[in-house]
Amino acid sequence: MQSTMQDVPLTVTRILAHGAKVHGSAQVTTWTGEGEPQRRTFAAVGGRATQLAHALRALGVAEGEPVGTLMWNNGDHLEAYLAVPSMGAVLHTLNLRLPPEQLAYIVRHAADRVVIVSGSLLPLLAPLLPHLDCVEHVIVSGAGDTSVLDGPHPRVHRYEQLIAGHPADHYAWPAIDERQAAALCYTSGTTGDPKGVVYSHRSIYLHAMEVCNPASFGLTPAETCLPVVPMFHVNAWGLPHAAFMAGTSLLMPDRFLQPAPLAEMIESERPTVTAGVPTIWQGLLAELDAKPRDMTSLRTVVSGGSACPPALMKAFEERHGLNVVQAWGMTETSPLGSVAYPPAGVGPEEAWPYRVTQGRMPCSVEARLIGPGGEVLPWDGTSAGELEVRGPWIAGAYHGGAGSEPERPEDKFSPDGWLRTGDVGTITSDGFLTLTDRAKDVIKSGGEWISSVELENHLMAHPEVAEAAVVAVPDDKWGERPLAAVVLRDGSSVDYESLRAFLGERVARWQLPERWALIPAVPKTSVGKFDKKVLRRQYADGELVVTTLG
Amino acid sequence: MQSTMQDVPLTVTRILAHGAKVHGSAQVTTWTGEGEPQRRTFAAVGGRATQLAHALRALGVAEGEPVGTLMWNNGDHLEAYLAVPSMGAVLHTLNLRLPPEQLAYIVRHAADRVVIVSGSLLPLLAPLLPHLDCVEHVIVSGAGDTSVLDGPHPRVHRYEQLIAGHPADHYAWPAIDERQAAALCYTSGTTGDPKGVVYSHRSIYLHAMEVCNPASFGLTPAETCLPVVPMFHVNAWGLPHAAFMAGTSLLMPDRFLQPAPLAEMIESERPTVTAGVPTIWQGLLAELDAKPRDMTSLRTVVSGGSACPPALMKAFEERHGLNVVQAWGMTETSPLGSVAYPPAGVGPEEAWPYRVTQGRMPCSVEARLIGPGGEVLPWDGTSAGELEVRGPWIAGAYHGGAGSEPERPEDKFSPDGWLRTGDVGTITSDGFLTLTDRAKDVIKSGGEWISSVELENHLMAHPEVAEAAVVAVPDDKWGERPLAAVVLRDGSSVDYESLRAFLGERVARWQLPERWALIPAVPKTSVGKFDKKVLRRQYADGELVVTTLG
Repeated sequence: MQSTMQDVPLTVTRILAHGAKVHGSAQVTTWTGEGEPQRRTFAAVGGRATQLAHALRALGVAEGEPVGTLMWNNGDHLEAYLAVPSMGAVLHTLNLRLPPEQLAYIVRHAADRVVIVSGSLLPLLAPLLPHLDCVEHVIVSGAGDTSVLDGPHPRVHRYEQLIAGHPADHYAWPAIDERQAAALCYTSGTTGDPKGVVYSHRSIYLHAMEVCNPASFGLTPAETCLPVVPMFHVNAWGLPHAAFMAGTSLLMPDRFLQPAPLAEMIESERPTVTAGVPTIWQGLLAELDAKPRDMTSLRTVVSGGSACPPALMKAFEERHGLNVVQAWGMTETSPLGSVAYPPAGVGPEEAWPYRVTQGRMPCSVEARLIGPGGEVLPWDGTSAGELEVRGPWIAGAYHGGAGSEPERPEDKFSPDGWLRTGDVGTITSDGFLTLTDRAKDVIKSGGEWISSVELENHLMAHPEVAEAAVVAVPDDKWGERPLAAVVLRDGSSVDYESLRAFLGERVARWQLPERWALIPAVPKTSVGKFDKKVLRRQYADGELVVTTLG
Repeated sequence: MQSTMQDVPLTVTRILAHGAKVHGSAQVTTWTGEGEPQRRTFAAVGGRATQLAHALRALGVAEGEPVGTLMWNNGDHLEAYLAVPSMGAVLHTLNLRLPPEQLAYIVRHAADRVVIVSGSLLPLLAPLLPHLDCVEHVIVSGAGDTSVLDGPHPRVHRYEQLIAGHPADHYAWPAIDERQAAALCYTSGTTGDPKGVVYSHRSIYLHAMEVCNPASFGLTPAETCLPVVPMFHVNAWGLPHAAFMAGTSLLMPDRFLQPAPLAEMIESERPTVTAGVPTIWQGLLAELDAKPRDMTSLRTVVSGGSACPPALMKAFEERHGLNVVQAWGMTETSPLGSVAYPPAGVGPEEAWPYRVTQGRMPCSVEARLIGPGGEVLPWDGTSAGELEVRGPWIAGAYHGGAGSEPERPEDKFSPDGWLRTGDVGTITSDGFLTLTDRAKDVIKSGGEWISSVELENHLMAHPEVAEAAVVAVPDDKWGERPLAAVVLRDGSSVDYESLRAFLGERVARWQLPERWALIPAVPKTSVGKFDKKVLRRQYADGELVVTTLG
């Protein structure tokens, strides 16, 4: 028996048409820092996106070709989000926070011929341009001194002048295969070169449907969404496309990501849902503590990108009545992987153990935990394994291969095509995911895994320990064993045996480190994370004074 | 540039696995009329569905083969909903309200070899079986006297005995192409034979995602859904699959669709959202007026299938605090076509003009209005045309062709593949659909359409008119013109000129009927609708006494 359904593709073109027509009166409001915000209706955004498509075609942008955007969250960027994929080209969002050499690398790796740049970011782009031979056209959105780009190459255009005069009411949108490339985002991996993830029309559409779902963001025409997460970070978690699909008005912060203007725009524009990383919320909390604002419009504050400290969630709730919901995802997962709403019928206090997890996966994201021996582990809340995921908006490869060493494709994707997230954790029988370690930080000891993070947290709970880092070191008998590198508080003289005994009351005996070292401070990355690579190298090079307990 | 996304199909198999695992503690509660309801967890339903798949395979059910269900809304039926498509077979829901000869027709047309039947429906099935040579196995769900089926053919099985002993924890679910057939439902068209719509895994999955959306049903693990709409009517509007996807507990009414047990099960089981046809709600309203119950658990009552009288919606709201939301769809649209939530920021009183429309379409349903000359009409709230729709869960054909005369495929589908709904209406600039007529009931006069329903409503507002029907009759000059057939109240002697003048104050002059006839009563169908076919035939056969005004 054959299905009798129409064969209609899932495309960004459809999102553009639907939002501009059915939800034409919804608003995109861009914060300007002073004076009135810039306000556009979805109908106007749709018309301007159509003009942009004409303008890009006039510059020779072909189907399948990337168009770079080095832009803040604003109305123009939303137009590029809709126009570029709909015309069959590929939206390449450039992460302005990447180190300059990585930023140049991704423009060259994607071979962007056209880059749209926010005027305020010209000083960032200008010094890179001489290294970007591929770039032929720069389109400047908003005000900004373009003289910094002066020179014969590339050609510089003003966004408004470029789109003016083109028709806003029609474009011969091409027929799209839903598996066609629509958008490109590079990871900001700490090891090796950035790796490109190419989203399809299908993945963006399905992901947007899920973002609208009440178990994730719950977008409807009655909501206003403030994406604080940048549009160059995994498509602002899918919110721009989802909002246009749902008719949810958008409040765009542009470059005003500091706590004070965020508090101000929330108070005056009254968004109902917002999303960003814990660092942003930490800053907002301090701002609100110092100078309370009316935050009552916000029903949900979604936090993702890294684990949200429970104390931060509680402080927001107790001091400002704000509901912080944790979510997990990565560039390779579009990013919606899981959201930590508590189960039905659970009271506020009982909800905390669920809310501090990474949450539950939607139907379209399938998860499994892989143990040290490659076996699939049960969902019992205790068996810890590497999280692998599968689904229509999960990456199965990287653009042009997996990037340079030390990572190889087989480190990132299983033979049967699942994404290896590199995260280690547990899943409860009812699907709540808790991530504890990066896979590269767990100690693989005799077919079992030891969590370095767990050992570190216990050690740092000792009153005389200032900091502690645990790393895997080679061991002839067990493969790997933990090395505990400890920073003591000033004046402390606690010995390793006491620390080991302290740990022994908290973890299983076979997990206890034999190797110990005192260090002056834990090496850290530029963003303040423990840099365990350095410790492993110091150990390998014999730079640490290591004591081995019996 | 190539997308790097995984190629993962959208399947009912995934819905089954996700619901049974991540939402294993959600409940399916089936009303039993007396004593405790039957309660199963999603985990148990998943296990039993797995057993059912084994049992059906043991009966020789092959991939692509239909399995008929003649069942009420209950736990066993949900298991068939999940098992049959997941094993690659096709769930064929049999509409027990069809006339017996049509019921037999659809079983034979689909060539169902296996039929699962609710025990209470055996008396309905038994007399048909001798006419159903294709049926080899009957599986009886629940209690019921199977002796009525006695005879050598077909073989009769008890559901519980048939699935017992089969493994509940594994089945070699086949790889599914998402465009593969998953379910089959025949329309109950009033003209010609029923026509089969074959849903694909893709269409069911995407439709379920949309059903979960807060702009339609808003299903989450915190909700409990009562589908009063039968599972043999367009898959109970997609609610069973959507609820299993979302982890939304289900309250199943089984055969207890009368107002009193409905009120009782709502009061005791406290569903949060329910869905059914206006006739059901009319009955429930009378029941509640006579004997109030606690309905406070219900946040939304969705009404669809036919237009919901505004008076009914208002009565529910004013007398029982219930929010009735109107939705539109048909078998060919899976059925979610549009839902009438008012736009954002509209107060309760201003909301009424929106709530009485058919509502707005989701992103995946594209709509256009086609005028009398085949032209696409603007969305201006006044231009009336036939509604055509397009989307991934909209039918583009019928199983085995369009059915018998008088309907032909080209009457149902446009040359570019859109579904011709047969409904005539308007769409406002912000996408609110209002349906006014069936296309076959509008009068196509000189390139314009005249609404027979509008003329009838105005005529029936005249104090001396008891009933009025307006039909199109052939006209040499205009193609068609309206004929007004009027039933006067007893003792009235109002003349046609007066009635025409009365109409003339309410509609444009060119719409006024020239031809008038007095009739004793408007002919009606078995369900009480005006039967305009009869009137048109009586006119053609010269059976009406027609007066033509100058």
